[in-house]
Amino acid sequence: MTELTDDAGFLLSRASGLVARATNAALAEHGLRVRHYSVLVLACGAAEGMSQRDLACRLGLDPSQVVQLVDELADAGLVERRPSATDRRTKLVAGTPLGQRVRRQAARRATRGQQRPLGCLNEEEQATLRALLSRVVDSAG
Amino acid sequence: MTELTDDAGFLLSRASGLVARATNAALAEHGLRVRHYSVLVLACGAAEGMSQRDLACRLGLDPSQVVQLVDELADAGLVERRPSATDRRTKLVAGTPLGQRVRRQAARRATRGQQRPLGCLNEEEQATLRALLSRVVDSAG
Repeated sequence: MTELTDDAGFLLSRASGLVARATNAALAEHGLRVRHYSVLVLACGAAEGMSQRDLACRLGLDPSQVVQLVDELADAGLVERRPSATDRRTKLVAGTPLGQRVRRQAARRATRGQQRPLGCLNEEEQATLRALLSRVVDSAG
Repeated sequence: MTELTDDAGFLLSRASGLVARATNAALAEHGLRVRHYSVLVLACGAAEGMSQRDLACRLGLDPSQVVQLVDELADAGLVERRPSATDRRTKLVAGTPLGQRVRRQAARRATRGQQRPLGCLNEEEQATLRALLSRVVDSAG
């Protein structure tokens, strides 16, 4: 490997940055950035909500980063912390009705925004890209 | 898009983070992190060296970030700033002989390190991934 243009790490970093920038721009109207959005999607997607520990694990973030993101989403009324039904010591982060609504709108915007950097690939190629990336992410456990 | 696991932006961010972490671990022995390494590869790859402005553009970084990375590489004796032969006002960042040697060793380590997160894909799949990502990066200009 002598060229960065053939380096998977470099390409991943650049492509990831391009898509994150486009997603941030698409989400700006909701006052969200891509990390808030990821937390919101997970919090809204789990029936009972998700612990901050699980959020950190799923997102590959430090727990302290997740606490801040959840604080900001809670201040905006999009998520709330609820005690777990099975373990009262654990707090679960769950989407509020407003959060669910914002998530649906934000998802449409984010998907459209991502098509700016990804639109050079057709649908099948984008599906292939997602499938390959999914395997890399899943294999990390 | 209701699931993050089907979101290209999320998958890119997670996969990029996994590969960057593995590359950083592989490069630690050289005292380099992945961004230093990228600058070193570009500086060593261009016959005359590369301006800081071009480095920033190629790497998708702010010029101020590039200045700091170049300073650190120069302090380690791996690159040097030389006046351009065609425009004396422009300084080009070029690899030193030591930098060239370190780059070759670091490239082998980085490639091996990346196989930890990417090794779940066979060679053909990795080539497909790189080709798709290259098109996304190139189309951003």
